[in-house]
Amino acid sequence: MKLRYTGKTKDVYELENGNYLLEFKDDVTGVDGVFDPGANTVGLTMEGAGRAGLRLTKFFFEILKEKGIPTHYIDADIDQATMTVRPAAVFGKGLEVICRYRAVGSFLRRYGLYAQEGQHLDAFVEVTLKDDERQDPPVSEDALDMLGILSKDEYKVLKALTQQIGNVVKEELAKKGIELYDIKFEFGRVGEDKQIALIDEISGGNMRAYKDGEYIEPLELEKMFL
Amino acid sequence: MKLRYTGKTKDVYELENGNYLLEFKDDVTGVDGVFDPGANTVGLTMEGAGRAGLRLTKFFFEILKEKGIPTHYIDADIDQATMTVRPAAVFGKGLEVICRYRAVGSFLRRYGLYAQEGQHLDAFVEVTLKDDERQDPPVSEDALDMLGILSKDEYKVLKALTQQIGNVVKEELAKKGIELYDIKFEFGRVGEDKQIALIDEISGGNMRAYKDGEYIEPLELEKMFL
Repeated sequence: MKLRYTGKTKDVYELENGNYLLEFKDDVTGVDGVFDPGANTVGLTMEGAGRAGLRLTKFFFEILKEKGIPTHYIDADIDQATMTVRPAAVFGKGLEVICRYRAVGSFLRRYGLYAQEGQHLDAFVEVTLKDDERQDPPVSEDALDMLGILSKDEYKVLKALTQQIGNVVKEELAKKGIELYDIKFEFGRVGEDKQIALIDEISGGNMRAYKDGEYIEPLELEKMFL
Repeated sequence: MKLRYTGKTKDVYELENGNYLLEFKDDVTGVDGVFDPGANTVGLTMEGAGRAGLRLTKFFFEILKEKGIPTHYIDADIDQATMTVRPAAVFGKGLEVICRYRAVGSFLRRYGLYAQEGQHLDAFVEVTLKDDERQDPPVSEDALDMLGILSKDEYKVLKALTQQIGNVVKEELAKKGIELYDIKFEFGRVGEDKQIALIDEISGGNMRAYKDGEYIEPLELEKMFL
Protein backbone atom coordinates (compact mmCIF):
# COMPACT_ATOMS: atom_id res chain seq x y z
CA MET A 1 0.00 0.00 0.00
CA LYS A 2 1.10 3.56 -0.75
CA LEU A 3 1.00 6.63 1.50
CA ARG A 4 -1.12 9.11 -0.42
CA TYR A 5 -1.62 11.93 2.03
CA THR A 6 -0.43 13.01 5.46
CA GLY A 7 -3.15 14.99 7.23
CA LYS A 8 -3.29 16.85 10.51
CA THR A 9 -5.03 14.00 12.34
CA LYS A 10 -4.67 11.02 10.00
CA ASP A 11 -2.59 9.46 7.23
CA VAL A 12 -4.19 8.06 4.10
CA TYR A 13 -2.89 4.98 2.23
CA GLU A 14 -4.08 3.53 -1.06
CA LEU A 15 -4.70 -0.24 -0.98
CA GLU A 16 -3.99 -2.62 -3.85
CA ASN A 17 -7.72 -3.23 -4.45
CA GLY A 18 -8.37 0.50 -4.95
CA ASN A 19 -9.83 1.15 -1.52
CA TYR A 20 -8.14 3.41 1.03
CA LEU A 21 -6.83 2.89 4.54
CA LEU A 22 -7.09 5.74 7.04
CA GLU A 23 -4.67 5.61 9.93
CA PHE A 24 -5.89 7.62 12.92
CA LYS A 25 -3.12 9.55 14.70
CA ASP A 26 -2.94 10.77 18.29
CA ASP A 27 -2.83 14.41 17.16
CA VAL A 28 -5.88 16.65 17.55
CA THR A 29 -6.49 20.12 16.14
CA GLY A 30 -6.26 23.12 18.41
CA VAL A 31 -4.34 26.25 19.28
CA ASP A 32 -1.69 26.60 22.02
CA GLY A 33 -2.37 23.18 23.49
CA VAL A 34 -6.14 23.73 23.74
CA PHE A 35 -8.44 21.53 21.65
CA ASP A 36 -10.55 23.37 19.05
CA PRO A 37 -12.36 21.30 16.38
CA GLY A 38 -12.41 24.37 14.11
CA ALA A 39 -8.65 24.99 14.27
CA ASN A 40 -6.31 24.50 11.33
CA THR A 41 -3.30 23.46 13.36
CA VAL A 42 -2.40 20.44 15.44
CA GLY A 43 -2.79 21.80 18.96
CA LEU A 44 -1.76 18.81 21.02
CA THR A 45 -0.99 15.11 20.95
CA MET A 46 -3.00 12.91 23.28
CA GLU A 47 -2.04 9.27 23.89
CA GLY A 48 -4.86 7.07 22.63
CA ALA A 49 -6.69 9.88 20.79
CA GLY A 50 -6.44 8.03 17.46
CA ARG A 51 -8.06 4.81 18.70
CA ALA A 52 -10.65 6.73 20.70
CA GLY A 53 -11.62 8.70 17.59
CA LEU A 54 -11.77 5.53 15.55
CA ARG A 55 -14.00 3.76 18.09
CA LEU A 56 -16.54 6.58 17.94
CA THR A 57 -16.25 6.79 14.16
CA LYS A 58 -16.86 3.03 13.81
CA PHE A 59 -19.84 3.26 16.15
CA PHE A 60 -21.50 6.10 14.22
CA PHE A 61 -20.64 4.92 10.71
CA GLU A 62 -22.17 1.52 11.49
CA ILE A 63 -25.38 3.16 12.72
CA LEU A 64 -25.50 5.27 9.55
CA LYS A 65 -25.00 2.09 7.48
CA GLU A 66 -27.98 0.47 9.23
CA LYS A 67 -30.06 3.55 8.48
CA GLY A 68 -29.06 3.48 4.82
CA ILE A 69 -27.26 6.84 4.98
CA PRO A 70 -24.39 6.81 2.47
CA THR A 71 -20.81 6.91 3.81
CA HIS A 72 -17.42 5.76 2.54
CA TYR A 73 -17.01 3.30 5.45
CA ILE A 74 -16.14 -0.37 4.87
CA ASP A 75 -14.67 -1.57 8.18
CA ALA A 76 -12.34 -0.63 11.03
CA ASP A 77 -9.49 -2.27 12.96
CA ILE A 78 -9.31 -0.66 16.39
CA ASP A 79 -5.99 -2.33 17.38
CA GLN A 80 -4.27 -0.99 14.28
CA ALA A 81 -6.13 2.35 14.52
CA THR A 82 -7.11 2.00 10.87
CA MET A 83 -10.34 2.24 8.89
CA THR A 84 -10.88 0.92 5.36
CA VAL A 85 -12.99 3.10 3.09
CA ARG A 86 -14.15 3.37 -0.50
CA PRO A 87 -12.35 5.97 -2.61
CA ALA A 88 -14.04 9.36 -2.61
CA ALA A 89 -13.54 12.58 -4.55
CA VAL A 90 -13.93 15.69 -2.39
CA PHE A 91 -15.81 18.75 -3.63
CA GLY A 92 -13.33 21.22 -5.10
CA LYS A 93 -10.29 21.16 -2.83
CA GLY A 94 -12.41 20.08 0.14
CA LEU A 95 -15.27 21.52 2.15
CA GLU A 96 -16.21 21.42 5.79
CA VAL A 97 -19.90 21.24 6.54
CA ILE A 98 -20.99 22.31 10.00
CA CYS A 99 -24.26 21.50 11.71
CA ARG A 100 -25.06 23.70 14.69
CA TYR A 101 -27.46 23.18 17.60
CA ARG A 102 -26.10 25.93 19.87
CA ALA A 103 -24.36 29.23 19.10
CA VAL A 104 -20.68 28.80 20.04
CA GLY A 105 -17.27 29.01 18.31
CA SER A 106 -16.93 30.67 14.91
CA PHE A 107 -20.71 31.15 14.61
CA LEU A 108 -20.64 33.41 17.64
CA ARG A 109 -17.47 35.18 16.45
CA ARG A 110 -19.27 36.05 13.19
CA TYR A 111 -22.84 36.64 14.33
CA GLY A 112 -22.36 37.82 17.91
CA LEU A 113 -24.21 41.05 17.09
CA TYR A 114 -27.40 39.01 16.68
CA ALA A 115 -26.86 35.75 18.59
CA GLN A 116 -26.45 35.03 22.29
CA GLU A 117 -23.79 32.56 23.43
CA GLY A 118 -25.33 29.11 23.74
CA GLN A 119 -28.55 30.11 21.98
CA HIS A 120 -30.40 27.16 20.38
CA LEU A 121 -29.94 26.81 16.62
CA ASP A 122 -32.16 24.41 14.74
CA ALA A 123 -29.63 22.11 12.98
CA PHE A 124 -28.22 25.18 11.23
CA VAL A 125 -25.93 24.21 8.34
CA GLU A 126 -23.00 26.21 7.04
CA VAL A 127 -20.17 25.38 4.69
CA THR A 128 -16.56 26.54 4.73
CA LEU A 129 -13.81 26.03 2.18
CA LYS A 130 -10.84 24.00 3.38
CA ASP A 131 -8.18 26.64 2.81
CA ASP A 132 -5.71 27.11 5.67
CA GLU A 133 -4.11 30.11 3.98
CA ARG A 134 -7.45 31.96 3.91
CA GLN A 135 -8.66 30.71 7.32
CA ASP A 136 -11.34 28.39 5.90
CA PRO A 137 -13.72 31.10 4.61
CA PRO A 138 -17.48 30.53 4.84
CA VAL A 139 -19.05 30.02 1.43
CA SER A 140 -22.65 30.44 0.30
CA GLU A 141 -24.78 28.10 -1.80
CA ASP A 142 -24.56 30.62 -4.68
CA ALA A 143 -20.76 30.87 -4.42
CA LEU A 144 -20.35 27.07 -4.35
CA ASP A 145 -22.38 26.87 -7.53
CA MET A 146 -20.61 29.75 -9.27
CA LEU A 147 -17.14 28.52 -8.37
CA GLY A 148 -18.01 25.11 -9.85
CA ILE A 149 -17.62 23.31 -6.52
CA LEU A 150 -21.17 22.10 -5.95
CA SER A 151 -24.38 22.51 -7.96
CA LYS A 152 -27.55 23.87 -6.37
CA ASP A 153 -29.09 20.39 -6.47
CA GLU A 154 -26.02 18.85 -4.85
CA TYR A 155 -26.16 21.53 -2.16
CA LYS A 156 -29.70 20.48 -1.26
CA VAL A 157 -28.55 16.85 -0.88
CA LEU A 158 -25.52 17.92 1.16
CA LYS A 159 -27.59 20.07 3.51
CA ALA A 160 -30.25 17.40 4.04
CA LEU A 161 -27.61 14.68 4.70
CA THR A 162 -25.80 16.99 7.13
CA GLN A 163 -28.95 17.59 9.17
CA GLN A 164 -29.89 13.90 9.02
CA ILE A 165 -26.45 12.75 10.24
CA GLY A 166 -26.18 15.57 12.77
CA ASN A 167 -29.52 14.50 14.24
CA VAL A 168 -28.41 10.84 14.44
CA VAL A 169 -25.30 11.87 16.41
CA LYS A 170 -27.31 14.25 18.59
CA GLU A 171 -29.83 11.53 19.48
CA GLU A 172 -27.13 8.97 20.27
CA LEU A 173 -25.34 11.43 22.55
CA ALA A 174 -28.62 12.40 24.21
CA LYS A 175 -29.12 8.73 25.22
CA LYS A 176 -26.05 9.19 27.47
CA GLY A 177 -27.17 12.57 28.78
CA ILE A 178 -24.72 14.39 26.52
CA GLU A 179 -25.73 17.42 24.45
CA LEU A 180 -24.32 18.08 20.99
CA TYR A 181 -23.58 21.79 20.38
CA ASP A 182 -22.05 21.52 16.90
CA ILE A 183 -20.40 19.01 14.60
CA LYS A 184 -18.26 19.25 11.49
CA PHE A 185 -18.48 16.81 8.59
CA GLU A 186 -16.71 16.14 5.32
CA PHE A 187 -18.46 14.80 2.27
CA GLY A 188 -17.35 13.48 -1.08
CA ARG A 189 -18.57 11.76 -4.21
CA VAL A 190 -18.27 7.99 -3.80
CA GLY A 191 -18.56 5.13 -6.28
CA GLU A 192 -19.30 5.02 -9.99
CA ASP A 193 -22.54 6.97 -9.63
CA LYS A 194 -20.69 9.69 -7.67
CA GLN A 195 -23.15 9.47 -4.80
CA ILE A 196 -22.74 12.21 -2.17
CA ALA A 197 -21.58 10.40 0.97
CA LEU A 198 -20.12 11.20 4.37
CA ILE A 199 -16.35 10.68 4.49
CA ASP A 200 -13.55 11.12 7.05
CA GLU A 201 -14.68 10.55 10.64
CA ILE A 202 -17.23 11.24 13.36
CA SER A 203 -15.34 11.60 16.61
CA GLY A 204 -14.81 13.86 19.58
CA GLY A 205 -12.29 15.76 17.45
CA ASN A 206 -14.95 17.22 15.20
CA MET A 207 -17.74 18.03 17.57
CA ARG A 208 -18.46 20.06 20.67
CA ALA A 209 -20.34 18.04 23.25
CA TYR A 210 -21.47 19.17 26.71
CA LYS A 211 -22.78 17.47 29.83
CA ASP A 212 -24.70 19.57 32.37
CA GLY A 213 -23.32 22.70 30.69
CA GLU A 214 -19.70 21.49 30.94
CA TYR A 215 -17.65 20.97 27.79
CA ILE A 216 -16.42 17.38 27.33
CA GLU A 217 -12.88 16.87 25.98
CA PRO A 218 -12.66 14.50 22.95
CA LEU A 219 -10.94 11.67 24.87
CA GLU A 220 -13.33 12.03 27.78
CA LEU A 221 -16.28 11.87 25.38
CA GLU A 222 -15.13 8.52 24.04
CA LYS A 223 -14.84 7.12 27.59
CA MET A 224 -18.26 8.42 28.61
CA PHE A 225 -19.84 7.26 25.43
CA LEU A 226 -18.63 3.73 24.72
CA MET B 1 -34.67 69.34 11.81
CA LYS B 2 -32.77 67.00 14.11
CA LEU B 3 -29.43 65.28 13.57
CA ARG B 4 -30.22 61.58 13.93
CA TYR B 5 -27.02 59.87 12.88
CA THR B 6 -23.45 60.78 11.98
CA GLY B 7 -22.09 58.27 9.50
CA LYS B 8 -18.68 57.73 7.93
CA THR B 9 -19.63 59.50 4.69
CA LYS B 10 -22.90 61.27 5.49
CA ASP B 11 -25.00 62.80 8.25
CA VAL B 12 -28.70 62.03 8.60
CA TYR B 13 -31.33 64.56 9.78
CA GLU B 14 -35.00 64.01 10.51
CA LEU B 15 -37.30 66.57 8.88
CA GLU B 16 -40.50 67.94 10.45
CA ASN B 17 -42.69 66.11 7.91
CA GLY B 18 -41.19 62.74 8.87
CA ASN B 19 -38.87 62.44 5.87
CA TYR B 20 -35.09 62.43 6.21
CA LEU B 21 -32.32 64.63 4.85
CA LEU B 22 -28.97 63.04 3.98
CA GLU B 23 -26.00 65.40 3.92
CA PHE B 24 -23.16 64.04 1.81
CA LYS B 25 -19.71 64.69 3.33
CA ASP B 26 -16.35 64.95 1.62
CA ASP B 27 -15.05 61.86 3.47
CA VAL B 28 -14.65 58.56 1.66
CA THR B 29 -13.94 55.11 3.11
CA GLY B 30 -10.48 53.64 2.78
CA VAL B 31 -7.33 52.59 4.58
CA ASP B 32 -4.13 54.64 4.93
CA GLY B 33 -5.27 57.32 2.48
CA VAL B 34 -6.22 54.82 -0.25
CA PHE B 35 -9.86 54.59 -1.30
CA ASP B 36 -11.53 51.19 -0.67
CA PRO B 37 -15.32 50.94 -0.98
CA GLY B 38 -15.26 47.90 1.31
CA ALA B 39 -13.34 49.59 4.13
CA ASN B 40 -14.88 50.41 7.50
CA THR B 41 -12.83 53.52 8.16
CA VAL B 42 -12.70 56.97 6.62
CA GLY B 43 -9.51 56.81 4.61
CA LEU B 44 -9.32 60.28 3.18
CA THR B 45 -11.18 63.53 2.68
CA MET B 46 -11.51 64.78 -0.90
CA GLU B 47 -12.77 68.29 -1.67
CA GLY B 48 -16.03 67.97 -3.59
CA ALA B 49 -16.46 64.24 -2.95
CA GLY B 50 -19.84 64.77 -1.28
CA ARG B 51 -21.38 66.71 -4.18
CA ALA B 52 -19.80 64.36 -6.73
CA GLY B 53 -21.33 61.39 -4.93
CA LEU B 54 -24.69 63.10 -4.72
CA ARG B 55 -24.68 63.96 -8.46
CA LEU B 56 -24.16 60.31 -9.37
CA THR B 57 -26.69 59.18 -6.78
CA LYS B 58 -29.30 61.63 -8.12
CA PHE B 59 -28.60 60.45 -11.67
CA PHE B 60 -29.03 56.76 -10.84
CA PHE B 61 -31.93 57.10 -8.40
CA GLU B 62 -33.89 59.07 -11.01
CA ILE B 63 -33.27 56.37 -13.62
CA LEU B 64 -34.44 53.74 -11.13
CA LYS B 65 -37.56 55.82 -10.45
CA GLU B 66 -38.35 55.93 -14.18
CA LYS B 67 -37.95 52.15 -14.32
CA GLY B 68 -40.28 51.68 -11.36
CA ILE B 69 -37.56 50.16 -9.14
CA PRO B 70 -38.30 51.05 -5.50
CA THR B 71 -35.90 53.42 -3.68
CA HIS B 72 -36.20 55.83 -0.77
CA TYR B 73 -35.31 58.83 -3.01
CA ILE B 74 -37.50 61.96 -3.11
CA ASP B 75 -35.20 64.70 -4.44
CA ALA B 76 -31.70 66.16 -4.23
CA ASP B 77 -30.14 69.60 -3.81
CA ILE B 78 -26.65 69.51 -5.31
CA ASP B 79 -25.61 72.98 -3.99
CA GLN B 80 -26.45 72.00 -0.42
CA ALA B 81 -25.08 68.45 -0.95
CA THR B 82 -28.33 67.07 0.47
CA MET B 83 -30.86 64.46 -0.57
CA THR B 84 -34.39 64.10 0.79
CA VAL B 85 -35.61 60.55 1.30
CA ARG B 86 -38.51 58.60 2.75
CA PRO B 87 -37.90 56.99 6.14
CA ALA B 88 -36.62 53.44 5.92
CA ALA B 89 -36.01 50.67 8.44
CA VAL B 90 -32.84 48.71 7.75
CA PHE B 91 -32.73 44.92 8.07
CA GLY B 92 -31.47 43.98 11.53
CA LYS B 93 -28.67 46.44 12.33
CA GLY B 94 -27.92 46.95 8.64
CA LEU B 95 -26.72 44.82 5.74
CA GLU B 96 -24.48 45.46 2.79
CA VAL B 97 -25.45 43.75 -0.43
CA ILE B 98 -22.73 43.34 -3.03
CA CYS B 99 -23.19 42.62 -6.71
CA ARG B 100 -20.07 41.37 -8.46
CA TYR B 101 -19.15 41.29 -12.15
CA ARG B 102 -15.42 40.62 -11.74
CA ALA B 103 -13.44 38.84 -9.01
CA VAL B 104 -11.60 41.52 -7.00
CA GLY B 105 -11.45 42.79 -3.40
CA SER B 106 -12.85 40.69 -0.57
CA PHE B 107 -14.23 38.09 -3.00
CA LEU B 108 -10.71 37.29 -4.13
CA ARG B 109 -9.39 37.38 -0.56
CA ARG B 110 -11.95 34.73 0.40
CA TYR B 111 -12.14 32.58 -2.73
CA GLY B 112 -8.68 33.01 -4.25
CA LEU B 113 -8.16 29.24 -4.13
CA TYR B 114 -10.85 28.88 -6.81
CA ALA B 115 -11.10 32.25 -8.58
CA GLN B 116 -8.63 34.15 -10.76
CA GLU B 117 -8.18 37.90 -10.25
CA GLY B 118 -10.50 39.76 -12.59
CA GLN B 119 -12.46 36.64 -13.57
CA HIS B 120 -15.99 37.39 -14.82
CA LEU B 121 -18.76 36.80 -12.28
CA ASP B 122 -22.34 36.83 -13.47
CA ALA B 123 -23.95 39.49 -11.21
CA PHE B 124 -22.96 37.40 -8.20
CA VAL B 125 -24.75 38.58 -5.05
CA GLU B 126 -23.44 38.32 -1.51
CA VAL B 127 -24.55 39.86 1.76
CA THR B 128 -22.48 41.02 4.72
CA LEU B 129 -23.58 42.21 8.13
CA LYS B 130 -22.73 45.82 8.96
CA ASP B 131 -20.62 45.11 12.04
CA ASP B 132 -17.32 47.01 12.22
CA GLU B 133 -16.23 45.10 15.32
CA ARG B 134 -16.53 41.75 13.49
CA GLN B 135 -15.21 43.05 10.13
CA ASP B 136 -18.59 42.90 8.35
CA PRO B 137 -18.91 39.10 8.22
CA PRO B 138 -20.49 37.47 5.16
CA VAL B 139 -23.87 35.95 5.97
CA SER B 140 -25.84 33.26 4.16
CA GLU B 141 -29.52 33.21 3.18
CA ASP B 142 -30.10 30.54 5.86
CA ALA B 143 -28.32 32.56 8.55
CA LEU B 144 -30.26 35.74 7.68
CA ASP B 145 -33.47 33.79 8.09
CA MET B 146 -32.43 32.05 11.30
CA LEU B 147 -31.16 35.26 12.92
CA GLY B 148 -34.50 36.92 12.18
CA ILE B 149 -32.94 39.53 9.88
CA LEU B 150 -34.57 38.62 6.56
CA SER B 151 -37.03 35.88 5.59
CA LYS B 152 -36.31 33.50 2.69
CA ASP B 153 -38.94 35.29 0.58
CA GLU B 154 -37.46 38.69 1.37
CA TYR B 155 -34.02 37.36 0.44
CA LYS B 156 -35.32 36.42 -3.01
CA VAL B 157 -36.66 39.97 -3.50
CA LEU B 158 -33.40 41.49 -2.21
CA LYS B 159 -31.27 39.37 -4.54
CA ALA B 160 -33.41 40.08 -7.60
CA LEU B 161 -33.46 43.85 -6.88
CA THR B 162 -29.68 43.84 -6.36
CA GLN B 163 -29.06 42.21 -9.74
CA GLN B 164 -31.61 44.47 -11.45
CA ILE B 165 -30.07 47.66 -10.04
CA GLY B 166 -26.52 46.42 -10.56
CA ASN B 167 -27.32 45.76 -14.19
CA VAL B 168 -28.81 49.28 -14.60
CA VAL B 169 -25.61 50.84 -13.25
CA LYS B 170 -23.45 48.52 -15.33
CA GLU B 171 -25.31 49.45 -18.53
CA GLU B 172 -25.16 53.19 -17.82
CA LEU B 173 -21.41 53.00 -17.18
CA ALA B 174 -20.90 50.89 -20.30
CA LYS B 175 -22.42 53.72 -22.39
CA LYS B 176 -19.35 55.80 -21.40
CA GLY B 177 -16.90 52.95 -22.00
CA ILE B 178 -16.59 52.26 -18.27
CA GLU B 179 -16.77 48.75 -16.84
CA LEU B 180 -18.37 48.00 -13.47
CA TYR B 181 -16.44 45.38 -11.44
CA ASP B 182 -18.54 45.42 -8.29
CA ILE B 183 -21.00 47.58 -6.40
CA LYS B 184 -22.34 47.68 -2.87
CA PHE B 185 -25.92 48.56 -1.95
CA GLU B 186 -28.01 49.09 1.13
CA PHE B 187 -31.66 48.22 1.33
CA GLY B 188 -34.42 48.85 3.80
CA ARG B 189 -38.16 48.56 4.32
CA VAL B 190 -39.88 51.75 3.15
CA GLY B 191 -43.42 53.05 3.61
CA GLU B 192 -46.46 51.58 5.31
CA ASP B 193 -46.35 48.36 3.30
CA LYS B 194 -42.67 47.90 4.27
CA GLN B 195 -41.63 47.54 0.64
CA ILE B 196 -38.01 46.45 0.16
CA ALA B 197 -36.29 49.44 -1.46
CA LEU B 198 -32.80 50.67 -2.26
CA ILE B 199 -31.56 53.24 0.28
CA ASP B 200 -28.38 55.26 0.88
CA GLU B 201 -26.53 56.14 -2.33
CA ILE B 202 -25.11 54.98 -5.66
CA SER B 203 -21.82 56.76 -6.18
CA GLY B 204 -18.16 56.21 -6.92
CA GLY B 205 -17.68 55.56 -3.22
CA ASN B 206 -19.51 52.24 -3.32
CA MET B 207 -18.40 50.75 -6.59
CA ARG B 208 -15.25 49.70 -8.41
CA ALA B 209 -15.23 50.97 -11.98
CA TYR B 210 -12.50 50.49 -14.59
CA LYS B 211 -11.68 52.00 -17.98
CA ASP B 212 -9.38 50.06 -20.31
CA GLY B 213 -8.30 47.93 -17.35
CA GLU B 214 -7.41 50.98 -15.22
CA TYR B 215 -9.21 51.61 -11.95
CA ILE B 216 -11.11 54.92 -11.83
CA GLU B 217 -11.05 56.90 -8.57
CA PRO B 218 -14.51 57.95 -7.26
CA LEU B 219 -14.06 61.67 -8.01
CA GLU B 220 -12.66 60.91 -11.45
CA LEU B 221 -15.62 58.65 -12.16
CA GLU B 222 -18.06 61.46 -11.51
CA LYS B 223 -16.15 63.76 -13.90
CA MET B 224 -15.97 61.14 -16.63
CA PHE B 225 -19.55 60.17 -16.18
CA LEU B 226 -21.60 63.36 -15.91
